[in-house]
Amino acid sequence: PQHYPFNKHQHLRYNPLRDSWVLVSAHRMKRPWAGQVERPPEEHIPRYDPNNPLCPGNKRANGKGNPDYDSTFVFENDFPALQPDAPDPGSDQDPLFQSKAARGVCKVMCFHPWSDVTLPLMKKEEVVNVIDKWAELVEELGTIYPWVQIFENKGAMMGCSNPHPHCQVWASNFLPNEPALSDRCQRAYYEKHGEPMLLQYAKREAEKKERVVVESSDWLAVVPYWATWPYQTLLLPRRHVLRISDLTTEEREGLAAIMKRLLTKYDNLFEVSFPYSMGWHGAPTGPYLKEDNSHWQLHAHYYPPLLRSATVKKFMVGYEMLAQEQRDLTPEQAAEKLRNLPEEHYKTR
Amino acid sequence: PQHYPFNKHQHLRYNPLRDSWVLVSAHRMKRPWAGQVERPPEEHIPRYDPNNPLCPGNKRANGKGNPDYDSTFVFENDFPALQPDAPDPGSDQDPLFQSKAARGVCKVMCFHPWSDVTLPLMKKEEVVNVIDKWAELVEELGTIYPWVQIFENKGAMMGCSNPHPHCQVWASNFLPNEPALSDRCQRAYYEKHGEPMLLQYAKREAEKKERVVVESSDWLAVVPYWATWPYQTLLLPRRHVLRISDLTTEEREGLAAIMKRLLTKYDNLFEVSFPYSMGWHGAPTGPYLKEDNSHWQLHAHYYPPLLRSATVKKFMVGYEMLAQEQRDLTPEQAAEKLRNLPEEHYKTR
Ligand SMILES: O=P(O)(O)O[C@H]1O[C@H](CO)[C@@H](O)[C@H](O)[C@H]1O
Ligand SMILES: O=P(O)(O)O[C@H]1O[C@H](CO)[C@@H](O)[C@H](O)[C@H]1O
Repeated sequence: PQHYPFNKHQHLRYNPLRDSWVLVSAHRMKRPWAGQVERPPEEHIPRYDPNNPLCPGNKRANGKGNPDYDSTFVFENDFPALQPDAPDPGSDQDPLFQSKAARGVCKVMCFHPWSDVTLPLMKKEEVVNVIDKWAELVEELGTIYPWVQIFENKGAMMGCSNPHPHCQVWASNFLPNEPALSDRCQRAYYEKHGEPMLLQYAKREAEKKERVVVESSDWLAVVPYWATWPYQTLLLPRRHVLRISDLTTEEREGLAAIMKRLLTKYDNLFEVSFPYSMGWHGAPTGPYLKEDNSHWQLHAHYYPPLLRSATVKKFMVGYEMLAQEQRDLTPEQAAEKLRNLPEEHYKTR
Repeated sequence: PQHYPFNKHQHLRYNPLRDSWVLVSAHRMKRPWAGQVERPPEEHIPRYDPNNPLCPGNKRANGKGNPDYDSTFVFENDFPALQPDAPDPGSDQDPLFQSKAARGVCKVMCFHPWSDVTLPLMKKEEVVNVIDKWAELVEELGTIYPWVQIFENKGAMMGCSNPHPHCQVWASNFLPNEPALSDRCQRAYYEKHGEPMLLQYAKREAEKKERVVVESSDWLAVVPYWATWPYQTLLLPRRHVLRISDLTTEEREGLAAIMKRLLTKYDNLFEVSFPYSMGWHGAPTGPYLKEDNSHWQLHAHYYPPLLRSATVKKFMVGYEMLAQEQRDLTPEQAAEKLRNLPEEHYKTR
C-alpha cells in the first residue's frame, strides 16, 4: 500500500484499539456544502462574570460559594450523573432486560481563575498545575473506583454550557464500554506481540512521520491511521506509562508543552477557539491496581467536530450511526494541515 | 427490579444487540440547561423550488436532469462515498496499519414529488410506494453486495442539507461495523436460546407494554429497554422476517400505517418536524443469501437527537464518546410521553 493513492480512492482502515473499521472517502471533500452552518464560538468572554457559577468567589446553583481560587479548583458536580449511593436494581432473569448498579462521583475542575483563557493560552506552569491535579484525582478516586474518566467538552458545539476553562472527572464502579473494549484490544495485542500496542504504534509513527502533528523527546501527537473525526488526534508518551499519575515531573512539563503546541495548532486551523471533546485513557484502577496491566499505555483522545471551517462540522449521522464511521479526508491530509500551521497562537501574533 | 424506582436512581442497562451498556441517570433532567440552543427546523418549505436539485424536472450538480417524477425517484448520489471500482489498497503486514478495499454504490431516493411533505403527512399508499422501493433496492443491490444500508437523515440538525423528503441507500462489499456486531449478537443469542432475539424481545415488550409507543397486529414500535438517544425507538415486525424484501403486501401496508403513527407522534412531541437519523437492519445479502440467517430479525432504528424541546438536543459528547453512553430520562418515561400523544398530526388538526 506504499504507493496507493489513499486520497483518491475510498478504502477501509482498521482501528486496533476498538477492533472496528472506518471508511475513508477523501474525494467526498469535493462535494459542495449546503447544510447546517454552526454559530461561530463566542470570541469576547469577560475575564470575570459575576453571574458565572465557575468564577472565583461566585455562588453555584446549590447555594455553595466558590473560594477565591487562584489556580485550579475542583468541586462536586451539582447535577451528577453518578452518585455514590444508588441502590442496586438487581437483575431480571431475562437476558433481554439486564440492569446493574451504577455508582460513582462526578467532579468539575476549573483550569484557571480567568474565564477568558484556554489551555493553549495559559502559561506552561499553569498547565502543569492542571496535569498535577488530574494525576491527583486519578490517584485519589482510583483507590476505590475501577475507572476514572477525565474529559473536557470544549465549545458550545460540544454541549459545553460554560465558557470558563474546565473539565470533568467521572469515576464509576464499573469499567465503561469504551475502556472495556480498549482493554480487551490492548490485552489481545500484548499477548500476541509481546509489547504494548500503543508503545509500538508510537515508535512506528515517529519513524513514518506522515501522521505526526507535534513531537518532543517524550511525547507524540498523531492523527491516528484509523481516525474517524476529521482532525482527531492521539497524544502518547514515548515511554511505557500506565496511568497519568505515573508521569515524572519532566514528563508532566513535556506534556504541558506539547498540549500547548497541539491546541495552538487546533486554534490556528480555522482561527477560532477549536471545539472538541477530549479525554484520558490509562490502565484501570480500584481492584485492577492489583493486576498486571502491562498491556496498557496511557493516552489522550481528541475528538474535534469541525470539518470545513469554523462553522461547518462533520455530521456523524445516518450511515455512521447505522452502519460505520466514514471520513471525508485522509488522516495524512489532516496531519499535514495541522503540522504546517504556526506554533504561535493567532491571538497573540 | 420490578419495584425498583428506575427513574430515581442511576443504573446500567444492557443492550443485547450491541453487547454494551448504557448509563441511565434520570435525575439529570432536573439540571437547568444553559448550553447551546439549535435553530428550529424551517417550517415554510415551498412545494416546488426551481433551485432544489431534488425536485421533479430540475437539474442536478452533475448537469443531469430529473424526470418529472410523480411518485418515488431513485438516482445515483452525485458525490458517492462508495464507488464500484476503487482499487484494492492491499494490506501492510503490520497489524497496526491495516487497510482493505471498499467498493459499493450510493443512491438517493426521493419519497415524493413535493418538497413540503414528510412521511407522516404523506398518504398511506404513498408510504407503501416508498416501502416497495426500499424492498426493490435491497433485492436488486443485494444480489451482489453483502450489505445494503437504507437510511434517512431528517432535519438540518442531522446533517441533512435538503428539505425535500428523501433517504439514501449505500451498498457495500463489506459488512459494516454496526451490522457485523448486531449479526454476532443475534447469532450468539439464537445459538443459546433457540429463538431469534428480536422476535422474543417483541413478544416480551408486547406483554409488558410499558415501553410500547404504537402497535398493530403485525408491527410494534418500542423505546428499547437499552435506548441511548432520549426518544430512540425500535420498529419490529411481529412475524419472523429476515429482510424488508420478504414483507407481504399486508405487512407493507401495516408498516406504512405504523410509520405514519410513530412519526406523527414524533412531530407532535415538540410540535415540530422531528429530526432523526433512521435506518433498516435486516439479514445480510450477497454471499450471505446462501447461508442460514435464522438468527436475524428485520428492524428499523430511529435515533432522534432532541431532548428537552424543539431546540435543545442531547449532546453525545465527552463522557459518551470516551467512556459510555448516558441518558437523562428513562426509556419508560420517553415511551409514556410518546404513547400519550395524539395520533393526529399537529399540522392537520
Ligand atoms: O447527505 P449527505 O450530504 O451526503 O451527508 C450526510 O450524510 C452522510 C451519511 O450519513 C454523512 O457522512 C455526512 O457527514 C452527512 O452530512
Ligand atoms: O457538561 P454537562 O452540562 O454536565 O453535560 C454535557 O456533558 C455530559 C457528559 O459528556 C453529557 O452527558 C451531556 O449531554 C452534555 O451536555
